[in-house]
Amino acid sequence: MKTTIIMGIPGCGKTSIIELALKKLKGEYKVVNFGTLMFLMLKEKKLVKTRDEMRKLNEQIQIDAQEKAAEKIADLAKKQNIIVDTHCSIQTTKGYVVGLPEPVLKKISPDQIILIEASSEEIFKRRVKDNTRARDADSVEGIEFHQQINRNLALTFCVLTRAVFSIVHNKTGRLLIGSKELAEIIHA
Amino acid sequence: MKTTIIMGIPGCGKTSIIELALKKLKGEYKVVNFGTLMFLMLKEKKLVKTRDEMRKLNEQIQIDAQEKAAEKIADLAKKQNIIVDTHCSIQTTKGYVVGLPEPVLKKISPDQIILIEASSEEIFKRRVKDNTRARDADSVEGIEFHQQINRNLALTFCVLTRAVFSIVHNKTGRLLIGSKELAEIIHA
Amino acid sequence: MKTTIIMGIPGCGKTSIIELALKKLKGEYKVVNFGTLMFLMLKEKKLVKTRDEMRKLNEQIQIDAQEKAAEKIADLAKKQNIIVDTHCSIQTTKGYVVGLPEPVLKKISPDQIILIEASSEEIFKRRVKDNTRARDADSVEGIEFHQQINRNLALTFCVLTRAVFSIVHNKTGRLLIGSKELAEIIHA
Repeated sequence: MKTTIIMGIPGCGKTSIIELALKKLKGEYKVVNFGTLMFLMLKEKKLVKTRDEMRKLNEQIQIDAQEKAAEKIADLAKKQNIIVDTHCSIQTTKGYVVGLPEPVLKKISPDQIILIEASSEEIFKRRVKDNTRARDADSVEGIEFHQQINRNLALTFCVLTRAVFSIVHNKTGRLLIGSKELAEIIHA
Repeated sequence: MKTTIIMGIPGCGKTSIIELALKKLKGEYKVVNFGTLMFLMLKEKKLVKTRDEMRKLNEQIQIDAQEKAAEKIADLAKKQNIIVDTHCSIQTTKGYVVGLPEPVLKKISPDQIILIEASSEEIFKRRVKDNTRARDADSVEGIEFHQQINRNLALTFCVLTRAVFSIVHNKTGRLLIGSKELAEIIHA
Repeated sequence: MKTTIIMGIPGCGKTSIIELALKKLKGEYKVVNFGTLMFLMLKEKKLVKTRDEMRKLNEQIQIDAQEKAAEKIADLAKKQNIIVDTHCSIQTTKGYVVGLPEPVLKKISPDQIILIEASSEEIFKRRVKDNTRARDADSVEGIEFHQQINRNLALTFCVLTRAVFSIVHNKTGRLLIGSKELAEIIHA
């Protein structure tokens, strides 16, 4: 059984590329969105009603929820291959928040960490077009910087867990190629 | 109570920008210089008389002093907001020495890590002008490299502690803007 | 007694520069190739006959072998200065595998970590010429990327162990200068 963490900044096309790669993987993998799992676990405990309420929770409750979600994933991974869809870091007004701090990461204990990257110009264009989500368009330089930060963080994650590191480039108009590459790396 | 670590290479203008930011923060924060704290603790134990003597101490004594200083900071942080002014790494003839190795870092347990950066050309010019301190002017490339190293180290610090990461740019002639940004990030 | 880890990607000229540096160090240092040590320990236990068989072993056996080799090095380091010749990360079809994951690294507990780097163009040329080893020539960009990854990983290693970090540049036609610099840093 294998646990793969897939990360990428908003607008890199992570969701689309994972969906397409999954079709090539013939359903042997269960995708778990880390944020959604945390939300469902907190909702069940009646601590929140909506996702937005999560970030307003007491910090210790958020930390506990993260660790509980990580334990849940480790538990699921005993019986099947898991793909964890999550953020390497989250850009906030306070700065960059690490998506998977050491204790959370070690609980998940991934075998593989894959970063989905796209050109910063393309991500910028996608964010500007995307009016459905309340996304900060940022600047091309800011996007470049965030992707660089995520590379550094992901490599630290690998030192702490032995996970194998890869980057998959998601180029506009080449989603098929990217998803094929992603499927091959996951299956390797 | 919040602990903020602020780091930056010699000549980035860290001291000036912190001083100015503090005025905007209305004195709610106590600044602790990590090196000074270590020195005072070692001096009190009669192990050194001057700061320069610190680096000549037996390595294990230096390590113990670092950890004791970190514990002192954690203790102070129970009662007030702390800003730790320190080095991310120190350039020596032996190579780059990490300013906050894992055990020291975990004892401080920062909520926030802020790097002060300036353009490498500006830092080079400041170092050349500065005759009062025995600073190695280095080269523009060497300064660029040191700042890049510090970004990598600071991000690893964040994975190990959950600290939120930010960079504040300290541009020549724009100290007011930089210090305002720094104050806002500390206060966020 | 001092433990120095020296790392560099295939084609950076690590072996040559270490050999030459050693002559300047007057035999006070014992060089241990990490992969060879693992191989010999596994061979003695009759688990493998050739080096190639190592990567086909059960993953847990590989992990144990790595940790046992690290313990052996720590043991040797009690009596003499050790230079560990190893890989920071290994490029595989699955992605980049970290050469020294946290537990292995902490067992070795290095005082110093040195990366040998060369220009990516030069490494590319050396790999193309080198027909004796089954090396993937990769692309100049791929080589550049691998060296960048290794910088990030090596810095994380330093945070986890207090090791002092250096890079030595191995330029074609300047092996003497590079090896002299390496010897000085090791001896510092």
